[in-house]
Amino acid sequence: MTGTVEFWFDFSSPYGYFASHRIDAVAEAAGRTAVWKPFMLGAMFRLTGARPLSTVPLKGPYSIHDWDRLARYYGVPWMLPETFPIATLAAARVYYWLVERDAVTAKRFAKACYHTYFGEGRTIEPVDEVAAIAESVGVSGDEAVAAANAPEWKAALKTAGDEAVSKGVCGSPFVIVDGEGFWGDDRLVMVAEWLVRGGW
Amino acid sequence: MTGTVEFWFDFSSPYGYFASHRIDAVAEAAGRTAVWKPFMLGAMFRLTGARPLSTVPLKGPYSIHDWDRLARYYGVPWMLPETFPIATLAAARVYYWLVERDAVTAKRFAKACYHTYFGEGRTIEPVDEVAAIAESVGVSGDEAVAAANAPEWKAALKTAGDEAVSKGVCGSPFVIVDGEGFWGDDRLVMVAEWLVRGGW
Repeated sequence: MTGTVEFWFDFSSPYGYFASHRIDAVAEAAGRTAVWKPFMLGAMFRLTGARPLSTVPLKGPYSIHDWDRLARYYGVPWMLPETFPIATLAAARVYYWLVERDAVTAKRFAKACYHTYFGEGRTIEPVDEVAAIAESVGVSGDEAVAAANAPEWKAALKTAGDEAVSKGVCGSPFVIVDGEGFWGDDRLVMVAEWLVRGGW
Repeated sequence: MTGTVEFWFDFSSPYGYFASHRIDAVAEAAGRTAVWKPFMLGAMFRLTGARPLSTVPLKGPYSIHDWDRLARYYGVPWMLPETFPIATLAAARVYYWLVERDAVTAKRFAKACYHTYFGEGRTIEPVDEVAAIAESVGVSGDEAVAAANAPEWKAALKTAGDEAVSKGVCGSPFVIVDGEGFWGDDRLVMVAEWLVRGGW
């Protein structure tokens, strides 16, 4: 089997951030490529009735503790941003613009967005911040701002969200392998096993 | 470290069912004992605003598919009950009555409840069904019915629910090791590692 591994995530999702450090290796170990697909979790919350985890009684304190613990477990930088969660429209639109030009740079941009937000705890909501991140990976900040504001890339992000819903994506991160969906950072181990065994 | 491993679950929780097959082995591998603690997830849902997974858009179809897949993965019997979810007050009250008399039989009773409900797909909501399960593990059905209706064991279940909330239990299953909570069947692997490493 040679299909891609779809990695659906929101730039404001801590569990998506943790999974982003391992998804490429999981795919590559099976001779596959991970295709990163950001979407707006907030739009999905309107369908599922979910709220941002950190604001939910019991689940909020649990999650905040869990993120610290996972960061130590995985050995990745972690800082809960002061402004959290945020709408990551600009980052996602710029990603979809970039990925059509250069998939490698687009992924570097996505990783830099995640690192800025959760590794350094700095917001990536303002388009200026997203432009600065674009420049850090060698992309014109002005072009990034233009892409974030362009109807074409607004539509592309909307289309990605519709695609996510049509494929049954129900949270972030969500991985799809050969039509089989796996929800949650916890499930990357099972994704790896599914790839090796070809399902069960 | 020699503390017990607390296994919090609802008898109507599929992920609790899956975890119930492995939690004892996880604890015993570290020289510990798993203490099973049923609680009413529905009462917790009133705090967290959650709804039964199978009724939630996107998450419902995902979960139903995931339960079939997990059952094949773990090699355990699985049948989504026609009546699902249910209030498992009777089973939980009988458990708390039994566990004070005989912890070994109480655990056998709990496993038999889970097997009846998710292994055979038969409801365990009516107290008569719970009494029949009690008899299958050598306990008087009449005494079980009496326990299910007794103020003492109603209060014991209520107290367990309060204890769960006070300890930050936010879903089912939820495992607590030395004050550290882990939510979800997926996390049993991490629980095992935490026990071996003594945390991180």
